[in-house]
Amino acid sequence: MGETVKYLLPEEKLPRFWYNIAADLPEPLPPVLHPATGKPIGPSDLAPLFPMALIAQEVSTEREIEIPEPVREILRLWRPSPLFRARRLEKALGTLARIYYKYEGVSPGGSHKPNTAVAQAFYNKQEGVKRLVTETGAGQWGTSLALSGAFLGLGVDVYMVKVSYNQKPYRRAIMETFGARCVASPSTETEAGRRMLAQDPNCTGSLGLAISEAVEVASQRDDTKYALGSVLNHVLLHQTVIGLEAMAQFEMADDYPDVVIGCAGGGSNFAGAAFPFLGEQLRGGRKVRIVAVEPAACPTITRGRYAYDFGDTAHLTPLMKMLTLGSTFMPAGIHAGGLRYHGMAPLVSHIARLGHIEGRNYHQNTCFEAGVQFARCEGIIPAPETTHAIRAAIDEALACKEEGAARSIFFNFSGHGHFDMQAYSDYLGGKLVDQEHDERLLQKAFAELPQVEG
Amino acid sequence: MGETVKYLLPEEKLPRFWYNIAADLPEPLPPVLHPATGKPIGPSDLAPLFPMALIAQEVSTEREIEIPEPVREILRLWRPSPLFRARRLEKALGTLARIYYKYEGVSPGGSHKPNTAVAQAFYNKQEGVKRLVTETGAGQWGTSLALSGAFLGLGVDVYMVKVSYNQKPYRRAIMETFGARCVASPSTETEAGRRMLAQDPNCTGSLGLAISEAVEVASQRDDTKYALGSVLNHVLLHQTVIGLEAMAQFEMADDYPDVVIGCAGGGSNFAGAAFPFLGEQLRGGRKVRIVAVEPAACPTITRGRYAYDFGDTAHLTPLMKMLTLGSTFMPAGIHAGGLRYHGMAPLVSHIARLGHIEGRNYHQNTCFEAGVQFARCEGIIPAPETTHAIRAAIDEALACKEEGAARSIFFNFSGHGHFDMQAYSDYLGGKLVDQEHDERLLQKAFAELPQVEG
Repeated sequence: MGETVKYLLPEEKLPRFWYNIAADLPEPLPPVLHPATGKPIGPSDLAPLFPMALIAQEVSTEREIEIPEPVREILRLWRPSPLFRARRLEKALGTLARIYYKYEGVSPGGSHKPNTAVAQAFYNKQEGVKRLVTETGAGQWGTSLALSGAFLGLGVDVYMVKVSYNQKPYRRAIMETFGARCVASPSTETEAGRRMLAQDPNCTGSLGLAISEAVEVASQRDDTKYALGSVLNHVLLHQTVIGLEAMAQFEMADDYPDVVIGCAGGGSNFAGAAFPFLGEQLRGGRKVRIVAVEPAACPTITRGRYAYDFGDTAHLTPLMKMLTLGSTFMPAGIHAGGLRYHGMAPLVSHIARLGHIEGRNYHQNTCFEAGVQFARCEGIIPAPETTHAIRAAIDEALACKEEGAARSIFFNFSGHGHFDMQAYSDYLGGKLVDQEHDERLLQKAFAELPQVEG
Repeated sequence: MGETVKYLLPEEKLPRFWYNIAADLPEPLPPVLHPATGKPIGPSDLAPLFPMALIAQEVSTEREIEIPEPVREILRLWRPSPLFRARRLEKALGTLARIYYKYEGVSPGGSHKPNTAVAQAFYNKQEGVKRLVTETGAGQWGTSLALSGAFLGLGVDVYMVKVSYNQKPYRRAIMETFGARCVASPSTETEAGRRMLAQDPNCTGSLGLAISEAVEVASQRDDTKYALGSVLNHVLLHQTVIGLEAMAQFEMADDYPDVVIGCAGGGSNFAGAAFPFLGEQLRGGRKVRIVAVEPAACPTITRGRYAYDFGDTAHLTPLMKMLTLGSTFMPAGIHAGGLRYHGMAPLVSHIARLGHIEGRNYHQNTCFEAGVQFARCEGIIPAPETTHAIRAAIDEALACKEEGAARSIFFNFSGHGHFDMQAYSDYLGGKLVDQEHDERLLQKAFAELPQVEG
């Protein structure tokens, strides 16, 4: 019998509580502001978009928030997710490091996203909501909300950026298989869509515009609310099952990470893996390095400003204090679509400012190189976003090799790449371009940041 | 805490032996014949194509054949695979039946195929082979052999039917990500390919021709052998880990199936799930119904003749006694490509003739309907092949409902549908046609069966 490669928790070890890092912050999170008044917003400002239970979670400072039993029942379809020891990769690298990864690709959506989609659908259902609307770019989030709607008996409308809608018919097919309605954005169904189509009938859409359409629909219909797949505190909270399970699995492995790594777009998979370990440290427990990895084309943590900014390009959201490249910044069209967000979750940004998170950025070719090496050793083809975490994990392992050190490296494998094979095809064909962010565009976007004292 | 939905075995419970049903057959399997002489073939006839260890397994009558430790070490990357109880589907159906499924989609190839691909690659490697060649249609088998080559350090060449090569660039991208060379067939690399291209430069290829190319290359090069993904005894043997694990998992569940269901193309996933249960019965143990499900467009078990026939359309293989529609029969272009094979594994055919297997066939729309219902309840989108098993499982559960019976139903979930979303798109768009087999074509193919006494 060889050495263990996967640490499996039985279903009854699925966490009963989410971990809320707000309880352990040395300084509280700056308030969210109303863009018109510049004053902190209250629950009633968010009520047209979100159910009260989620708004309460958004501002809660309780350390543990109970996971409702019906949510746990659905999560148990795929959770606890396995913690793998990447022994074949370790051997291929010739490193003394121990490399572990939490595999979130086992979810029906293929990524960590259903962890929050199911919870959001549950609370909406509980408050009598009949329909959820959201936007999706590459389709990962739309898929997760679609399947959560199927599980909980809620209608789901997904406004999908038209260029993706046309280029990724398979993503649309998955959402429709789960019973969701998928609409190309801009659409004729909303004022925002019609206005855009009147200006430009051939408009291929943008995430900002799709958000505008979804928010417009949600705010106009009583039985309909909006759902967001990252950035907000309650979304990060729902993802902490990842790190909580990993802590129990590290106990099984009789090990503890020296470094925790996650790719970071809006910040939710990263936070989900890292916050439970970070909380341990903030409460005076074991120390661990935390590394957030992002693309060189969209270096929010490594180059962003910590400032109040809008969450969307259409400026419909409240103002959040976060690391941002400016909401008018447009990153290059890299394949890791989930990392092309101008801002970083306020919680992640705040904690990074407090000095507890290292940022690191990579170009996409070196990430795909790591992804291919990983696939050939471990068998799983990672999503383009996940290759960023893998690149960092391999680099940490190679540093160990150089030093002759035997550290324990843990990264979150946020999702598989089954629906991203065009990216691999482009990489293997030598067609991927490494693009920095455009510095002039960045400075312009910084200059356009809203003028708010905070 | 709700009721258990998945039964997980720890890694050390991965079977140490494959189960060889040849040991428990009441009558031995008819011999394989040489097409030129009509006499039984010997190991030396197969030696140019397969390593001796696999040839030995092909004819072995030992009940237990040890799984080499290096093979187990790789299988442990995803095995033991989970046994799920489909509680949400049961509820949706309102049945008293207990529905269980073994989920083979957790493998890196997304199906059961790597169970044998890894073993085959191992034995070839052990005997000094440097390169494996094979054919692939839809790409599932080619993917599995490609990843096994990556795991074991063997080169892999996949001759992929040209129409699929062009229509499914993502399948090609996966194989290339795992380091395999993927060649559109007909190619200019072989005599068979060149001959076809001279006749018809626009030929889009066929599985039969791709087999011819692969076999030609394997038989001409000393360091190169051929690998087959189904039909042969050793392939079915390697798949018995599925049923062996399931038996241990049913013990955990304190249950035992009344019926075991699998979809059947060449027969390997079906046999892998069913043979261990069937062997128990053949040795005088607990009885269980065994149902093989196939498409109405290719009804090998339900309409085939039990006769000696070629395994390929190009007539390069030995003659095997099996249920066959005739090697010249061409099934309609249904989406379940893996079930479009004219023959059935000799072992499955023989056992069906002995009365231990029920055949059943379905049209594709009713299968996709079952697949969509399953996906909305359980979250996993099945491959088109797998929807056949699901249709049968749901029908068994509905029969229980009608009778007020509470039987235990077990089906093998052979693979996920992540690379088959076009099929779902067609189904949801109402574009799928239900095609019977063509009776005139079938009679013609029967008439063309080789004339062999056996």
